Amino acid sequence: MDLKQVAKDTVKVINSYLTYQAVRIIIGQLTETNPPLAYWLSNFSGQDKIQDGEAYIQALLREKQDLAWRVMTVRQHLAEEVTDFLPEMVRTNIAEANIEHRRQHLEKIAQIVAVEPSHEEFKTSPNDSENQAP
Amino acid sequence: MDLKQVAKDTVKVINSYLTYQAVRIIIGQLTETNPPLAYWLSNFSGQDKIQDGEAYIQALLREKQDLAWRVMTVRQHLAEEVTDFLPEMVRTNIAEANIEHRRQHLEKIAQIVAVEPSHEEFKTSPNDSENQAP
Repeated sequence: MDLKQVAKDTVKVINSYLTYQAVRIIIGQLTETNPPLAYWLSNFSGQDKIQDGEAYIQALLREKQDLAWRVMTVRQHLAEEVTDFLPEMVRTNIAEANIEHRRQHLEKIAQIVAVEPSHEEFKTSPNDSENQAP
Repeated sequence: MDLKQVAKDTVKVINSYLTYQAVRIIIGQLTETNPPLAYWLSNFSGQDKIQDGEAYIQALLREKQDLAWRVMTVRQHLAEEVTDFLPEMVRTNIAEANIEHRRQHLEKIAQIVAVEPSHEEFKTSPNDSENQAP
């Protein structure tokens, strides 16, 4: 288990994701101030293109340098504001999700085990007495 | 700019990515100890399926419960070992990448500005004198 490599790869994924979030924020801002440019950036930033944040910024630098500077500034701001909360949030979130998966799975097993007795109960449900003649 | 939502969405992405890394590690271990199961898990874990870590684990729980427990244990271990390093790594990585993009872009502009004088130099290259008759 190469933990250093896992950490490095995870950083790459986070960088690309924060780049994507920066682009979304800028498209939102441009929609108010410069709708044609918002439309252009939205078209330029297809889902596939933004999978690799660095390649995306290089491509944007060739097309519209000012927008590329802006994306770089916003993603750096996001990195500074957001990353400190991530370790605790990720650990808590994974621990809670694991507990929830185990709980749901045990509940399902319990339902399967209990299915025979509950089937018996249907035979004496209140609806049956309503169907009887007075 | 809704920083809380960005943090939440980023946590989801990291969770799914650590789930993917856990699966990769387990496939590596199984390749040594139980190749047919490694092959099964590799087939089951298509790229699309693992985009949402929680949906992936729910599906795996239905198919092979033991493997699902194992993925949950390994991803929790990764979260505990790796996440503390992420904030510093992400900030440094984005700051350095931004500097590198700016440097490369300025270099490219400098080359374009310098292209005319270097074009002049070709006229007096050493090859010209070789082509002259003695």
